Amino acid sequence: MLRYIARGMTDKKKVTAGILLIGDELLSGRTQDTNLATIAKFLEPLGVQVGEARILSDNADVIRDSVRKFSERFDYVFTTGGIGPTHDDITADCIAAAFGLGISEREDALDELRKRYEESELNAARRRMARIPDGAYLIDNPVSQAPGFQTHNVFTLAGVPQIMRGMLADITHRIEGGAKVYQISVEATGIGEGNAAAGLAEIEMKYGDVSIGSYPWFNESLRGINFVARSVSETTLAQVKSDLEALILLLSPER
Amino acid sequence: MLRYIARGMTDKKKVTAGILLIGDELLSGRTQDTNLATIAKFLEPLGVQVGEARILSDNADVIRDSVRKFSERFDYVFTTGGIGPTHDDITADCIAAAFGLGISEREDALDELRKRYEESELNAARRRMARIPDGAYLIDNPVSQAPGFQTHNVFTLAGVPQIMRGMLADITHRIEGGAKVYQISVEATGIGEGNAAAGLAEIEMKYGDVSIGSYPWFNESLRGINFVARSVSETTLAQVKSDLEALILLLSPER
Repeated sequence: MLRYIARGMTDKKKVTAGILLIGDELLSGRTQDTNLATIAKFLEPLGVQVGEARILSDNADVIRDSVRKFSERFDYVFTTGGIGPTHDDITADCIAAAFGLGISEREDALDELRKRYEESELNAARRRMARIPDGAYLIDNPVSQAPGFQTHNVFTLAGVPQIMRGMLADITHRIEGGAKVYQISVEATGIGEGNAAAGLAEIEMKYGDVSIGSYPWFNESLRGINFVARSVSETTLAQVKSDLEALILLLSPER
Repeated sequence: MLRYIARGMTDKKKVTAGILLIGDELLSGRTQDTNLATIAKFLEPLGVQVGEARILSDNADVIRDSVRKFSERFDYVFTTGGIGPTHDDITADCIAAAFGLGISEREDALDELRKRYEESELNAARRRMARIPDGAYLIDNPVSQAPGFQTHNVFTLAGVPQIMRGMLADITHRIEGGAKVYQISVEATGIGEGNAAAGLAEIEMKYGDVSIGSYPWFNESLRGINFVARSVSETTLAQVKSDLEALILLLSPER
């Protein structure tokens, strides 16, 4: 079996994840992805930040190359989609190819399927779901049994959101998180982004260890900005919050 | 000025687009992207298929390299986000860097901003929105005036969905589309994906010019599959639809 590589342990400061969302249906606009947000919110309290996500078509070469690159670039990689029983489910083979591993039907994965299916129902298509790269650890699927799996630092999960969410429960204990990143948000109403930009830059320069995003919104009658600041220091964030509130007061039209 | 490169004209069969969605807020799970689906649905009737999408953090090197790679790999590239007035709006500079172009405040872009802002309101932050890579074509912004722009085959659009959608209207005439791809879908209720896989593979093998996706769904009391077939031939699709319906009938439990 492969050793479980906890890269996060070597760098407590910043632990990152890359996410590969696999499936033509996500690119055609037919299906709206929600798995990215679910995984990001799952990782946040573990101190892991998502560095990049890619939405890939069902193309074996692209999936294989993307897995390989992300596995090198990020501490953890999550893939979703393409591990069902049909001909367009090619993710397991692509993961094996990415790491130069063999792949075959595994007895431990078949045992998981047997919790759901009678032996007579385990046809060739369903048995495909027991094809797992050599040495990979299974990931429990409490919703529909067909397991996900972990290969080195890559977690391969189902695409169906309910199943994907269920599999995350069996991943928490495998993640060695980094520093927890805190977040505050401050809403400004009636202010345009262009008015706030100079003051905002000043606040960001004042504090080295904080990143501040500025997200304008508007509707027919009103405009405004949401400021979101993130930092590993709660103390810094409290100061930033008070600086942002002072800036908003300064810029408010009623003043 | 740069020549407008209509790569689509050289290959009527398959015209592709890559999409780069830029912004930390999309990766934290705080903001749910909807621009990918909007662009995909905009491109479909023009005969352009989305080949890959990436969600990038506000990292200048990553954005620059991704733009460069996507520009080579796809006929058209769309970027969304990062062209506002604040310090984290770095997309325009990254596009210029990707193509080795200069970038400066342009009078034609300032003229657009003047439709919305009084001269006194055009502070340094807002003038940032008039920084455009040399030779790029402006893209009209009917919502909030600050323009998008086209650099070679890359369209750089706003991230706010309402503004992004408004900018697409000024892109239609710049796209040289490929063959229109038609789509049919057939829903099967009460059937599991594992039962349908073998029959589905047979249907796909029978027709060379069609791709069939299989999307399982389930709720507490029922399961089913949506089959989606895509092809440039409406005739083929009609045959595939009838084959899929026959397969479903064969597999239905009530039979």
